Amino acid sequence: MTITITAFERSPDGGKGLARDTRVRWALEEVARPYEVRLVSFRAMKEPAHLALHPFGQIPTYEEGDLVLFETGAIVLHIAERHAGLLPPDTDARARAIMWMFAAVNTMEPPILELVTVKILESDKPWSQARLPLVVDRIRNRLGQLSSRLGDDDWLDGTFSAGDLMMVSVLLRLRPSGILDEFPNLAAYVARGEARPGYKRAFDAQAAINA
Amino acid sequence: MTITITAFERSPDGGKGLARDTRVRWALEEVARPYEVRLVSFRAMKEPAHLALHPFGQIPTYEEGDLVLFETGAIVLHIAERHAGLLPPDTDARARAIMWMFAAVNTMEPPILELVTVKILESDKPWSQARLPLVVDRIRNRLGQLSSRLGDDDWLDGTFSAGDLMMVSVLLRLRPSGILDEFPNLAAYVARGEARPGYKRAFDAQAAINA
Repeated sequence: MTITITAFERSPDGGKGLARDTRVRWALEEVARPYEVRLVSFRAMKEPAHLALHPFGQIPTYEEGDLVLFETGAIVLHIAERHAGLLPPDTDARARAIMWMFAAVNTMEPPILELVTVKILESDKPWSQARLPLVVDRIRNRLGQLSSRLGDDDWLDGTFSAGDLMMVSVLLRLRPSGILDEFPNLAAYVARGEARPGYKRAFDAQAAINA
Repeated sequence: MTITITAFERSPDGGKGLARDTRVRWALEEVARPYEVRLVSFRAMKEPAHLALHPFGQIPTYEEGDLVLFETGAIVLHIAERHAGLLPPDTDARARAIMWMFAAVNTMEPPILELVTVKILESDKPWSQARLPLVVDRIRNRLGQLSSRLGDDDWLDGTFSAGDLMMVSVLLRLRPSGILDEFPNLAAYVARGEARPGYKRAFDAQAAINA
């Protein structure tokens, strides 16, 4: 069955790969599955046809036959469960890979996204500058904990998994801020993710749309 | 194999069931699996023995033989995959249930937790009162979208699933604020979750510790 995902007609980041369709593209590249892309404008994302697919009016969505999914983590997990390459065969290791997927979106990403709140959504508020250091400290705290756990390892739990795919994707959001470079092992971890051929193909595909 | 979870020695909410061990207890009750609980103090949570189990120094953790998991979503999904009762047998419906688990922790919970930031962590800051309406509006926006999707249904996708367990647990955090009552179908949805015998047993178990 044909897989169709949605992506921004024009990504807010101008093609830097931070829109969440890149995560899904990367997963599909890792398992070597072809896919089609339907581009959606900001206006269309809030209209009934798209809201029927994604109740929160975002991208990406994933359509495959009768199945419609939203939530990047769920889409990546669905792909990982159906095709070899993103989840280890050992049952316990598989559970830990899924654990890292949840850690990426539930523990690491929320404080990181607060940078967007303070720098963009609330940039015109009088408290914006004073709040920024608090937000950055919360991110540093999480990065320090993740850095301690990763140590000198290449990936979070043995071989590369969907957990690393999600975690690298979340950490990539920090590159423009420079905070990631305070944790050299995390910066190297992210660079290892970006060096994977599947990531490069995913990045190039989204960049081409936004060129 | 014995299942052991960790929970707060003294929960910050005093036993209102909002600590995340309640979600894991609820899942274990739904699938009728016995479990043991090891209580952890705030100090012990940040010490090496606990950090070896949970790199972010939180509760709950889940131990079962050699398997150690953290991240509530991952723990609930692990339980749901091993035991009948929390994931539908149909493959597509199962993927959608997992989608709602991710939606609960990645789309709904982050704006809801910002209430804690503004009301507690930053309550002494001069911007706290002025920021509160912005934070509440972001929550209302998400609740409105979720309310539209749920409509008159009892659960998010047919029968009760791990997706509802996670979503109800996340929405419960809003009850003290009163915001939930602005969306009667969501308030009724949460009440349906709380009325389940498994939830009641989980709630009572954590309340007994904090009595």
